[in-house]
Amino acid sequence: MMADPSVSAPKLEFAAGGGLLSRRMLLRGAAAGSGAALAALAMPRPAQAEPALPEWVTVAGERARGYGMPAEQEADVQRAIIEPFGDLARAFSLSGTPHHKLRGTITPNGLHFEVHHGGRPNLDPDGHRLMIHGMVERPIKFDLNALERYPMVTATHFLECSGNSFFNAVMPEPMQSGCDMLHGLLSNSEWTGVPVRVLLEEAGVRPEGRWVLAVGNDAPSLARSIPVEKLMDDAFVALYQNGERIRPEQGYPMRLLLPGFEGNMNVKWLTSLWVTDAPAYTKHESGEYTEILANGSSVKFTFAMGVKSVITHPSATMTMSGPGFYEISGIAWSGAGSVRKVEISADGGESWAEAALQEPVLPRALTRFRLPWRWEGAPTLLMSRAEDATGAVQPTRSSWKARYDPSNFLHYNAIQPWQITPEGSVQNVYA
Amino acid sequence: MMADPSVSAPKLEFAAGGGLLSRRMLLRGAAAGSGAALAALAMPRPAQAEPALPEWVTVAGERARGYGMPAEQEADVQRAIIEPFGDLARAFSLSGTPHHKLRGTITPNGLHFEVHHGGRPNLDPDGHRLMIHGMVERPIKFDLNALERYPMVTATHFLECSGNSFFNAVMPEPMQSGCDMLHGLLSNSEWTGVPVRVLLEEAGVRPEGRWVLAVGNDAPSLARSIPVEKLMDDAFVALYQNGERIRPEQGYPMRLLLPGFEGNMNVKWLTSLWVTDAPAYTKHESGEYTEILANGSSVKFTFAMGVKSVITHPSATMTMSGPGFYEISGIAWSGAGSVRKVEISADGGESWAEAALQEPVLPRALTRFRLPWRWEGAPTLLMSRAEDATGAVQPTRSSWKARYDPSNFLHYNAIQPWQITPEGSVQNVYA
Repeated sequence: MMADPSVSAPKLEFAAGGGLLSRRMLLRGAAAGSGAALAALAMPRPAQAEPALPEWVTVAGERARGYGMPAEQEADVQRAIIEPFGDLARAFSLSGTPHHKLRGTITPNGLHFEVHHGGRPNLDPDGHRLMIHGMVERPIKFDLNALERYPMVTATHFLECSGNSFFNAVMPEPMQSGCDMLHGLLSNSEWTGVPVRVLLEEAGVRPEGRWVLAVGNDAPSLARSIPVEKLMDDAFVALYQNGERIRPEQGYPMRLLLPGFEGNMNVKWLTSLWVTDAPAYTKHESGEYTEILANGSSVKFTFAMGVKSVITHPSATMTMSGPGFYEISGIAWSGAGSVRKVEISADGGESWAEAALQEPVLPRALTRFRLPWRWEGAPTLLMSRAEDATGAVQPTRSSWKARYDPSNFLHYNAIQPWQITPEGSVQNVYA
Repeated sequence: MMADPSVSAPKLEFAAGGGLLSRRMLLRGAAAGSGAALAALAMPRPAQAEPALPEWVTVAGERARGYGMPAEQEADVQRAIIEPFGDLARAFSLSGTPHHKLRGTITPNGLHFEVHHGGRPNLDPDGHRLMIHGMVERPIKFDLNALERYPMVTATHFLECSGNSFFNAVMPEPMQSGCDMLHGLLSNSEWTGVPVRVLLEEAGVRPEGRWVLAVGNDAPSLARSIPVEKLMDDAFVALYQNGERIRPEQGYPMRLLLPGFEGNMNVKWLTSLWVTDAPAYTKHESGEYTEILANGSSVKFTFAMGVKSVITHPSATMTMSGPGFYEISGIAWSGAGSVRKVEISADGGESWAEAALQEPVLPRALTRFRLPWRWEGAPTLLMSRAEDATGAVQPTRSSWKARYDPSNFLHYNAIQPWQITPEGSVQNVYA
């Protein structure tokens, strides 16, 4: 059904080139923001006739069950299994969240990304212990039941692998994959657990204790050094994920949660917090998670993930369903705090319009942004650019690349451009 | 391990009788709030020795997978199947969220409560349509693909069946069950979908259109009348639940979301919005969801759920693990807006202490409250009492019962008292 020419709709308010409309259109009661404006735009309508009475209305449905699952028609909404390492894949195991198939900000637990250095252990929660020892007055050992009686905190935070988006960082030509492969090592959950501060204070950290080595109860005993200040600030031992017990692949029965810090430091299957006076420089921190700069020097510790955004709708592998109205939608985040602003360009960076941010905007959590848009069916280069509360702005790919040795793929946070062809195909490009 | 007498811990600050401590203890940097205070309390410690090297550390773990599931050790964390209706159970089908096994505020999708009047239809999303018709200028029909292009909104809201907690309302003696059976027809999700306002404005509601009959695409064609004002305010057609497509038992592929309104009005498998000038008085609204008052008159439409709270930790069916420190934890909500205050009594209502509310406190969403507590091992009657932003306060059971005909079990929002025996057993009581 095309627009009804008899409708006198409000005039559309454009905010930038390429058909970007004002975010004010999304406000309740806005003159140009009403659904009436949509009546003036070509919107898709179902074409084929449907049966008078669908078959499923004529029979009794299924009864209630103990634990629900997604609709079988959604069976393709899965994490993408990523195996880019050849023989290294024997140790590493990765899967990415399909952000182009999700809306909102929470990642459902079944779709939270995975990066395992030695697989997901088949851990017995009754035999699992968390020790706090080293430079403390009173070493303490906890089991799960003990921690259940402690004060808890609930907070929504993203986790992002420091190697997220590595294909864009190092591939000479842009890979044509969805947001699951390209940016899927990123998820967002409501976590609940015990503040590390409470546990460290009970143990009594000695004045010389400045660092803590966190160790996982998995085959590689993944270990990372963390400044005591972060642990005394907002860190917690997460026991629950979106309400229920933390999932096996996210560290069941407990993981470290360091809001904003790179993923692998949030040690899964956490079993030991060893208070020391200096970093341990473990293989996992020196050998695997160090960035080499353009001048050949290495950055030993890059804790917080940089400010970043990705348009998820539309995004690569999608096809536009004809010209007309769309809502551009995406996610933005920063390890340094809250997202302050997201701008969108539909003309390759010539002009930018500010997107609407979904409230509540929470620090170190995914923020959903949206902007109304009229696509004319012309070739279009879409980009999003996020700014966080510290004023940091997402770089272009070329300025990001200039900072590092060509081999580096860690902490890649460049702008993601999507090229839309006149036929409506959406492609990953470097621009 | 008992408390170490050599530790000089801060003095505990009590806030009310029965061992209730001040919520200020939970604040970062609080003098009495530090973990050091816990060192002065008897806290449980793991008793038995554990193996030097757990077996699971000696072997490679499982690899990444497409869609994750809870740990097999958590197999008992299920929705409770509730079948209280005898032969009526052929049509009705219910399951309750196990809030006593959850923390945080989000309900994971697999554990969202269910109330089906004719079962969960095996609906083909490609054959499903949403019609807007009746007193409108331009009747419109949408399929799922069409709605995907519309502006969307994301919001976290609870849903509560108006019959939630019905065992407490009508059973002559308090039933000894967990929070899944007693209060489980309540869940909380982040929903994403298209504002109904946008769709109604595009269709153009005629001046005489004051009500909308919403109809579900299931066997009983469940239908409810809704004032146009609510639909033009904060209502939306939800397509996503905690990020992923809405689950079959919550209305896949779309349901109505009326923030704060009683559950069944949030029509699942939504297929029709019929604009009318008066309510339809369907069987589902007049026959099933009308409260009979003590004076014999009936209340036809009670839209918003009342202010309410439940302590989930500890709660009925649990056993305390010995005297000492605990954190009392629970959930509070109101269909009228935000929760303003939750008070807790540990002496049967003699004295009350204000609980800490977990930020962000969102309107018409579950709010987690917490209060530190030292249980001395004595008989204790625990209660929580919520107050919302409108000043409404949760009633006692006897004052709630006095308002209604004895048969009424709808909109029960009375205070839930838990009796703790000296042996640590937690029981449901009327008090």
